[in-house]
Amino acid sequence: MIENKTFDELTVGQSDSLSRTLTQEDIVAFAAVTHDTNPAHLDEEYAKNTLFKGTIAHGMWTAGVISAILGTQFPGAGTIYLGQTMQFRRPVRAGDTVTVTVTVKEKNEENGQVVLDCLVTNQKDEKVVVGEARVIAPKEKIRHEAIAVPKITIG
Amino acid sequence: MIENKTFDELTVGQSDSLSRTLTQEDIVAFAAVTHDTNPAHLDEEYAKNTLFKGTIAHGMWTAGVISAILGTQFPGAGTIYLGQTMQFRRPVRAGDTVTVTVTVKEKNEENGQVVLDCLVTNQKDEKVVVGEARVIAPKEKIRHEAIAVPKITIG
Repeated sequence: MIENKTFDELTVGQSDSLSRTLTQEDIVAFAAVTHDTNPAHLDEEYAKNTLFKGTIAHGMWTAGVISAILGTQFPGAGTIYLGQTMQFRRPVRAGDTVTVTVTVKEKNEENGQVVLDCLVTNQKDEKVVVGEARVIAPKEKIRHEAIAVPKITIG
Repeated sequence: MIENKTFDELTVGQSDSLSRTLTQEDIVAFAAVTHDTNPAHLDEEYAKNTLFKGTIAHGMWTAGVISAILGTQFPGAGTIYLGQTMQFRRPVRAGDTVTVTVTVKEKNEENGQVVLDCLVTNQKDEKVVVGEARVIAPKEKIRHEAIAVPKITIG
């Protein structure tokens, strides 16, 4: 069972983290679901001759990991996502482990909105994405069984 | 063959669009690749009792369609994604058709950066996401074969 954090339970400065290691299959699957077939992500021969000297993840995959922590962990179920800002600072490559840390920056008692600082670092502790999320935090406590990550197969 | 738009070819006010129809499988696949298993996206029984009265897409899937037009079409290959702001205005559901329109808002001759207004509407012409992208536009013309969207299977 997992449970969310309600607006009342959140305090300014409180934070939580989630890590993911990116695979080449994740990059292909992300292209499949978004139709973002930019060769920078999928064509190693092409990508060797770019600034990044090889294929890189879609920035929005990393953004998806921010969404994952907000929607499943902190604040979790019942969170309504209002907005996100992001600066893509460095590329993420297959094999990299990214850690998303979200920290409560502001709470608005009148409308239930919460602003969270979002920092994504890689295994070298370099910043890869920085930004802010704006959500309506859950009003009510929700406990539910963790949903298994669906399985997908490429091809 | 597809070709990109270079910085010099872009003019303020110029725009381009891309449409996608979301399937239930897209929602499951997006959860698989991001690990965002928020029940609002995957559990119909749970979602029936939420504000949105049913499962909805991850906001970041819609953001992925913005990334797709920027990376494959306008400006296309060679674009370096620096940042994105987004406000999630309305939910997107399986069966909805979203249209992303990106419009050149600012060009900075000194650093090659371009700001694009991003507007995502649904089939009722309602705004679902609004925001801005910041990119470095391609300096050089790139022509390459369109890459087929990879196939994935759920399960």
